[in-house]
Amino acid sequence: MPASAALRRPAKIPRATSEQSSRDLLLAAASELMNHRNTIDISLSELATRSKLNSALVKYYFGNKEGLMLALMKRDAAIAIRDLEHLLATPLPPAIKLQRHIAGVIKTFHRSPYLNRLLHAMLDDRSSDTDSAKQIAEFFVKPYVRLQRQLLLQGEKAGVFRKVDSMYFYVSTLGACDLLFNARFTLRSVFRVPRITDRIRDQYIEHVSSMVLQGLVRRSGSGSGSGSGSG
Amino acid sequence: MPASAALRRPAKIPRATSEQSSRDLLLAAASELMNHRNTIDISLSELATRSKLNSALVKYYFGNKEGLMLALMKRDAAIAIRDLEHLLATPLPPAIKLQRHIAGVIKTFHRSPYLNRLLHAMLDDRSSDTDSAKQIAEFFVKPYVRLQRQLLLQGEKAGVFRKVDSMYFYVSTLGACDLLFNARFTLRSVFRVPRITDRIRDQYIEHVSSMVLQGLVRRSGSGSGSGSGSG
Repeated sequence: MPASAALRRPAKIPRATSEQSSRDLLLAAASELMNHRNTIDISLSELATRSKLNSALVKYYFGNKEGLMLALMKRDAAIAIRDLEHLLATPLPPAIKLQRHIAGVIKTFHRSPYLNRLLHAMLDDRSSDTDSAKQIAEFFVKPYVRLQRQLLLQGEKAGVFRKVDSMYFYVSTLGACDLLFNARFTLRSVFRVPRITDRIRDQYIEHVSSMVLQGLVRRSGSGSGSGSGSG
Repeated sequence: MPASAALRRPAKIPRATSEQSSRDLLLAAASELMNHRNTIDISLSELATRSKLNSALVKYYFGNKEGLMLALMKRDAAIAIRDLEHLLATPLPPAIKLQRHIAGVIKTFHRSPYLNRLLHAMLDDRSSDTDSAKQIAEFFVKPYVRLQRQLLLQGEKAGVFRKVDSMYFYVSTLGACDLLFNARFTLRSVFRVPRITDRIRDQYIEHVSSMVLQGLVRRSGSGSGSGSGSG
């Protein structure tokens, strides 16, 4: 077990924990805590209690709490990007890939609601143009959009999808997936839905993927529909 | 010109302005300012300068700035609800009504970006369960959902729409319309789109309404698709 981290900051590193695993433990504790408490507002002391590590390690590994959140998003974004790359390389019909892609997004938001909240907190209009927002654009949004574009191209080449603008596709599909997880108050107060169960998740996957797919499939006489704005 | 307001708070009411129009002027100034400055963070002194009215009138008419924002949303929500009611009563095919409904939502967000931002600021998970959120649910979301449900029923009865869950319909269509106006940083940094032009608005209306409509239209062998969650 490497002791380099312990040598650098001896008083703060817990016994018998490597640098890599302390870092991972903090990330895991942060994600568990945010999902458990249903908020992204967690304190360093809560994090210390949950991880059984000194909260000063957050500063040591991540600079500050925002750095920890960013590292968490990098960890999870890497998984999402890898899964999407894998899906693209799989020999399946484009329509099936599209459905699995939508299912993947909704399942990720359902499993880790904090991800959706962090994306909003870091990317939305009240907080954009920060260094975090720029990093998220680079390590997550750009590769994600590039892979979505490949998926659309696969469908076009197979003659099953009509040509659609990748920005409109990105915004409309992500917006549809997203709002279910960013409208808890509306769901509760208007629709009497206190929480998003597995059943709701699966029905919503069916609803959104069917809508997006039907919007994409090439029909006789439809051609390239989305690109003729009427000024 | 009624002077009742001026009699109650003589020092703060501007000369030759009725209570109703002072109130309206403050609302108009707030909406102009937020659209002009591209933010919902406006100060009472900016509001006073813009409206040429004393900022103490905000307290007088609305209690505080949040009350003013809420009154603004009520004003705009009333217009949106009235338009949707009018559309439902118009003798048009359900598919056309659906397209006009989507176009109406996107045009409203495009014309008044602050509305979208206020909805997020007041309804999203970081600030829900407040009295403002509850009021918005009552005067806007509930009637809006009820009218959407009527639109879906008209289409079902005409045999052109399949049966869909109104919560899934609400969340997916509003989410798709919404994200274009709540992703300015992504649009700028990833898609090199500095602002949402009329052309983009119209193309997006075409994209979303086509997607939603295709997702709704009844096809041979499709039946009632969205309601078979796979656990």
